[in-house]
Amino acid sequence: MNDFTYYNPTKIEFGKGKEKNIGNYIKNYGYESVLLVYGTGSIKKSSLYNDTISSLKEAGLEYEELSGIVSNPLISKVRDGVKVAKEKKLQAVLGVGGGSVADSVKAIAAGAKYDGDVWDFFIQKAEIKEALPVFTVMTLAATASEMNGNAVITNEQTQQKLSIGTVLVNPVLSVINPELMTTVSKDYLAYSAVDVIAHSIEVYFTATQHPKFNSRIVESIIKTIMETTEILIKNPNDYEARGEFAWAATQALNGLAPSGTKGGVFPNHLIEHTLSALYNVPHGAGLSVVIPAWMKWYKEQNISQFERFAKEIFSVNGADAGIKELESWFCKIGSPVTLDQAGIPKNEIDNMSKNATQTSKLWGLEKVYNEQTISEILQKA
Amino acid sequence: MNDFTYYNPTKIEFGKGKEKNIGNYIKNYGYESVLLVYGTGSIKKSSLYNDTISSLKEAGLEYEELSGIVSNPLISKVRDGVKVAKEKKLQAVLGVGGGSVADSVKAIAAGAKYDGDVWDFFIQKAEIKEALPVFTVMTLAATASEMNGNAVITNEQTQQKLSIGTVLVNPVLSVINPELMTTVSKDYLAYSAVDVIAHSIEVYFTATQHPKFNSRIVESIIKTIMETTEILIKNPNDYEARGEFAWAATQALNGLAPSGTKGGVFPNHLIEHTLSALYNVPHGAGLSVVIPAWMKWYKEQNISQFERFAKEIFSVNGADAGIKELESWFCKIGSPVTLDQAGIPKNEIDNMSKNATQTSKLWGLEKVYNEQTISEILQKA
Repeated sequence: MNDFTYYNPTKIEFGKGKEKNIGNYIKNYGYESVLLVYGTGSIKKSSLYNDTISSLKEAGLEYEELSGIVSNPLISKVRDGVKVAKEKKLQAVLGVGGGSVADSVKAIAAGAKYDGDVWDFFIQKAEIKEALPVFTVMTLAATASEMNGNAVITNEQTQQKLSIGTVLVNPVLSVINPELMTTVSKDYLAYSAVDVIAHSIEVYFTATQHPKFNSRIVESIIKTIMETTEILIKNPNDYEARGEFAWAATQALNGLAPSGTKGGVFPNHLIEHTLSALYNVPHGAGLSVVIPAWMKWYKEQNISQFERFAKEIFSVNGADAGIKELESWFCKIGSPVTLDQAGIPKNEIDNMSKNATQTSKLWGLEKVYNEQTISEILQKA
Repeated sequence: MNDFTYYNPTKIEFGKGKEKNIGNYIKNYGYESVLLVYGTGSIKKSSLYNDTISSLKEAGLEYEELSGIVSNPLISKVRDGVKVAKEKKLQAVLGVGGGSVADSVKAIAAGAKYDGDVWDFFIQKAEIKEALPVFTVMTLAATASEMNGNAVITNEQTQQKLSIGTVLVNPVLSVINPELMTTVSKDYLAYSAVDVIAHSIEVYFTATQHPKFNSRIVESIIKTIMETTEILIKNPNDYEARGEFAWAATQALNGLAPSGTKGGVFPNHLIEHTLSALYNVPHGAGLSVVIPAWMKWYKEQNISQFERFAKEIFSVNGADAGIKELESWFCKIGSPVTLDQAGIPKNEIDNMSKNATQTSKLWGLEKVYNEQTISEILQKA
């Protein structure tokens, strides 16, 4: 078992109607003003926007708004948020939305306490030393962004999709109300399921040391996600399934699953970031294209874990059978498994490989994931 | 899924030699003095005592010592600690030892910030409002005390064994170094395994709502504990097994497993507290006596979960078969499964039932667990 530090101070308020207390939650920490960040208006279609504003007002909080966060969130918008937070001297940031909103508020929180350009953190030109306190109300389960310090942001000028990761931008408190997630479309439910499975299997397959306890935790998450996704496709209003999906998704990337493992990396995310940065495909759709291809390419390097996966998740024997089952399951829930299906031109693989190799260098993975190998993987997609 | 709040701000430093940094860990939080609490001298048999003192000195921390914490720790000793902490105006408490030491430092931490008698918290005469920061270095894995706000203390005068539970006494930071746990005797290894399994199954069997995700997490913990216990009985120095055992034990009672469940209670602990309070049997040994008896008595009330347990843990069919397998496994690892084996006089069941019913009233469980029913359960032991 590898040495590790586990520290996740985020408080989770899980359950029905808890978003209506968000103003008081923030106030109870002693903050008096907040930047409210949300997406392109879906929170105004339900009562969520009004409920949030009412809650902030009732708690006596001053607030500013920043709307228009898009899927694959942009650094330009983050910079807007940083500007407002600085100008108005806001004491906290609150994201109401999905993973993109959560990613954006974390970047804003860090940028608001930094004199330079917030993109510096993403290109590792500067280190995050402090940040405004982050709060989130989640409307989509997938990224575990509500309970970790990770944020992925796209720079539309440089065509880079890069990440930061520090406990300093872990949300202080996040609300997970499964009811808020029932309006998610079946497509996005499927993409979310793929994303959670991706978070679960990256370290599971790539770690050079992976205690069995961790394997069991990961398998618990995957089984739960698969089971509840199938229920939710049939009945989006199944609260129990929605709740289990959300909480399992949180556990997939809040630090528990990889604790004690060694050498795990995120190759599927690495390659997918290029697909969504260049072709604006949903992250989960990009992942379901990359994962089976990567698994076929990688399996021999950790064959026993691939065999374990096949047996534990699908009750089949052999790595190939397990990969096939997962690919079929992605198809079953309606997520693409080839570049074609995702509308990505296969003749641009060279360009994709070049782009992904840039990230690979930043992540220190170019020895294994370079233009040649990424191209090999994408050829299988 | 039931509404819940999940909040566990304890930082875990897991790995080899990390106890040698404990002085700096404490200092990094800004504290300058500490009460060092330990047991009856086993930390002086290894280098742990000297390493701890060196680390505190190197970090420039002032410290006082309180030794002599025993298994089933006593309120008299806690009162001693509170007195020293108050008199010397110490800023933090550090427990180096097993669950009893951790329990004691939490009680001391709460008592040091309270004008009345610390026992008031246990009899629910007063509520904990603040506490000194708690640090622990664990030498035994079982109680998850390193990552929760629970403490169980015995009042030797009133013959009560009662508990407190608040995140205010969660350790700020705990060191888990599996190497420090290799000197644990095979008996205590077995008792620890029983204790972790007990923590895992109480809510698993008694909750009126228990999401499948939670069942899977619990089963992951139990499988890991059973597998690693068997390895460690043969080879106490197996670091991997020791590490997985320790981390699984932490997860069993750090708040994750019951999150989202409803109505779970701790009847086996309730009854066992009486056995260890009256007869000073090790907690785990008392539990392995109570658990099979309680399972036989209770199974019909949640038969599907008992059937699930049998299948998932032992690959056998039927509640009875599962109970029998667990009982056999307790025997196999050398933990008693009858009152006789534990050296507890069966003719005193009436007295035990009376004593346990007192706790039952405090826990609000006397409707189900009263003199009559507890007597019925103990008759099966």
